[in-house]
Amino acid sequence: MTPQQLRLLDTLVPALPSRAILTDRSVIAPWETDWRDRWHGVAPILFEPGTVMEIQAIVAAAAREGVPLVPQGGNTSMVGGATPPASGEAVILSLRRLNRIRSIDGDGGLAVAEAGVILADLHDAAASHARRFPLTLGSRGSATIGGLVSTNAGGTQVLRWGTMRGLVAGVEAVLADGSLYEGLAALKKDNRGYDLNQLLIGAEGTLGIITAATLRLAPAIQARAVAWIGLATPDAAMRLLRRFEAAGNAVESFELLPAESLHAVLTHIPGTRPPLAGVHPWHVLVEAVTSDPAAPPPAAFVEEVLGAAMADGIVTDATVAANEAQAEAFWRIRDSISDAERATGPAAQHDISVPVEAMPRFLIEAAAACDARFPGTRASGFGHLGDGNVHFHVRAPAGADRRRWLAEEAPAVTRFVDDLVVAAGGSISAEHGIGQMKLHELERLSPPPRMAALRAIKRALDPAGIFNPGKLVTLAPSGAGE
Amino acid sequence: MTPQQLRLLDTLVPALPSRAILTDRSVIAPWETDWRDRWHGVAPILFEPGTVMEIQAIVAAAAREGVPLVPQGGNTSMVGGATPPASGEAVILSLRRLNRIRSIDGDGGLAVAEAGVILADLHDAAASHARRFPLTLGSRGSATIGGLVSTNAGGTQVLRWGTMRGLVAGVEAVLADGSLYEGLAALKKDNRGYDLNQLLIGAEGTLGIITAATLRLAPAIQARAVAWIGLATPDAAMRLLRRFEAAGNAVESFELLPAESLHAVLTHIPGTRPPLAGVHPWHVLVEAVTSDPAAPPPAAFVEEVLGAAMADGIVTDATVAANEAQAEAFWRIRDSISDAERATGPAAQHDISVPVEAMPRFLIEAAAACDARFPGTRASGFGHLGDGNVHFHVRAPAGADRRRWLAEEAPAVTRFVDDLVVAAGGSISAEHGIGQMKLHELERLSPPPRMAALRAIKRALDPAGIFNPGKLVTLAPSGAGE
Repeated sequence: MTPQQLRLLDTLVPALPSRAILTDRSVIAPWETDWRDRWHGVAPILFEPGTVMEIQAIVAAAAREGVPLVPQGGNTSMVGGATPPASGEAVILSLRRLNRIRSIDGDGGLAVAEAGVILADLHDAAASHARRFPLTLGSRGSATIGGLVSTNAGGTQVLRWGTMRGLVAGVEAVLADGSLYEGLAALKKDNRGYDLNQLLIGAEGTLGIITAATLRLAPAIQARAVAWIGLATPDAAMRLLRRFEAAGNAVESFELLPAESLHAVLTHIPGTRPPLAGVHPWHVLVEAVTSDPAAPPPAAFVEEVLGAAMADGIVTDATVAANEAQAEAFWRIRDSISDAERATGPAAQHDISVPVEAMPRFLIEAAAACDARFPGTRASGFGHLGDGNVHFHVRAPAGADRRRWLAEEAPAVTRFVDDLVVAAGGSISAEHGIGQMKLHELERLSPPPRMAALRAIKRALDPAGIFNPGKLVTLAPSGAGE
Repeated sequence: MTPQQLRLLDTLVPALPSRAILTDRSVIAPWETDWRDRWHGVAPILFEPGTVMEIQAIVAAAAREGVPLVPQGGNTSMVGGATPPASGEAVILSLRRLNRIRSIDGDGGLAVAEAGVILADLHDAAASHARRFPLTLGSRGSATIGGLVSTNAGGTQVLRWGTMRGLVAGVEAVLADGSLYEGLAALKKDNRGYDLNQLLIGAEGTLGIITAATLRLAPAIQARAVAWIGLATPDAAMRLLRRFEAAGNAVESFELLPAESLHAVLTHIPGTRPPLAGVHPWHVLVEAVTSDPAAPPPAAFVEEVLGAAMADGIVTDATVAANEAQAEAFWRIRDSISDAERATGPAAQHDISVPVEAMPRFLIEAAAACDARFPGTRASGFGHLGDGNVHFHVRAPAGADRRRWLAEEAPAVTRFVDDLVVAAGGSISAEHGIGQMKLHELERLSPPPRMAALRAIKRALDPAGIFNPGKLVTLAPSGAGE
């Protein structure tokens, strides 16, 4: 423990309940590593406060003693965003015990949830008020509201409902001096200066500790239709998406898969079956829903759009799930791609976005460019076509040693892919954030005015650098960009 | 002209086309005053650049010489946000000549418009692509995109489409060192750190000069239904709103008026007629639209909801406009309230919001509290009930001298109303911004952590204070809050 950390304990042990301060190595260890076991840090202290006032006390004392805090919720970051640095200078501030749903207003469509509330628990609570919170993702059983807000999380319903940025109506956060920013009031119109809520959303815990959020709820789903579609090109998929959009706003998910992703799933995931007969270069999974009990079931609408698209040569083959079990089977294929590809071999993975219209061309051209530049590798993208966001994976040549290839070859592949993304006007982090994984790429690829602005904001709101050090942006340039 | 301004001219006269630099007093004079003739400033120079590069040159030189710039579009601010200070130390930077619509993508539903594009011109351009830009307000013939973005403008379609904050998909801006922030790419998902677009939206030109924005377009309207409704209380109006919302998302406007607002219009605005027989304490104007040519006309839907609400005692009387002329007549009543109230006598006006659910109670209780506290005055609110936003006016006692009452009595009324708004968890500026009018009230009423954060951001991005001085937030506390 550093002298600063010892002084921090001196201050806080008398001030906090003993439950809120953990120093037992074996208790802390699981939280020093990310869930994929890629980043490993050291944190001599784990704070687990149960109230906002306790968090204020911790932040104020940490600021005084100069001890950096790493906020952590469900520890499900894809970019090492919640893992402490290896130096041991920082400590973990867990929000998991701050997990009350303070209120749910079904009529008004608003819930106030504390940072440690688990997403699945919010889903359940909303359902008990005949509402739903329309954002979901694979880690919903662990991911917490604070982390979801801090990373502006996405998922599979963004097409209709947007990311967290659009679903958050208010934010409460502890600022760098321990003061409380109270922005939970859900005002539809509020023009009192810079929008601090929007600044804290997606800031990855580097500007303040989010303690609670006001969240918008949507009407509960009455019925859904899930369809599986085979088609020739990503461009055909985009044309199909535009037809669904023109026909109304019932489509919540529009996921694109190349044949090889489907093949990987069918090969490696037990119990999966091809949804369509025949071989198709590309596949789309569509989900349409209705919240109106009096409305016709969405299957009819989906079949109508698909029938017309097939007649016009956009779609080669398609099937609408006949029941919930089949719908779940379609979704299981989509949700198993990452596991199946991992079983196939090592890959450099990129969570990237470009303007929606540009994605079909990007997918084809970027994959061809990668394959040509790195002989033996195989690039492909799958995911949220309707959001212009795919997970673009470049698989190692057959027989490559996983550890060696990921350490020695993958970084060059990633820089190459990131350069293509920037050239296409896109983002090297669509929904996973920057964390520590993409810190240097962000600095390398951001235009200097943007990087200077990010750094100026960081310095303004966290001048001593106590919030989540080494994530998103450093107080001073790291030199990686030069 | 100050020595700094003279040096600025020395630098810029050789660098810019002569059309871009105006120093003729008679040419500048109209732009030194706001359109309501409430704020009067002095600006020895008026820059009218025609390109982004010219703006970069002006900002870089102004930063070097320490000459503050007041950005100005259509000069339609309600809060003195575009009027230079009286000291004469600042100059005006007009964006009016930067008025190209750079692109419109009808299929993708996006337009890129420069800061000086007038809102009505954008409406026309979108219509020519079978789309619309779903934000409108009274000053649409003068207000410019840059100003609308910088003030996070609202209007009468916010209920369905949100404020500018939700309609802006990208921002381009010149920062305080003259560098260009390029954030126009319309990425649906982008988690590369702090959202600078959202920070610039609503910043009132105090953090950077917005030069262009990417804007989301909506499908064109195929049909609309406009209804006028009489009811007993604001609470009944709120229950009616919830019924419309539960029945779908076709309602774009839901405006509330007290009987006295209607009376003022009928008394002072020639050619207006009461839409309903009988006397009703409160009135609602509803507009529902459809964009789907195959959908049933919205009048049927509106009539169905109103019929059920009348049967349940929520609505006392209602009529759906039989044709476009009648629909326009209903809207004319709504749009004439400000003019009619001005004819009635002087009033302290407040553009305020509270959580939507809280507005019915606030309207009744705040009006009663005002009437009791300031004998002879008469308070009432009208406006965007669905947004939790009303224009809360307190009329002077009969016979009061306009000038004397506004100067000597109104400020205490405003402080009283603002205190009630804050106590209700609301905002003292719902859609008009802070400008110079509400600067001191913002400082008086903001919790210190919020004010400190606003000031830190201002200092971070505009350390020399060259952007729109004396608006929104000052670099140092003015002392008004102490």
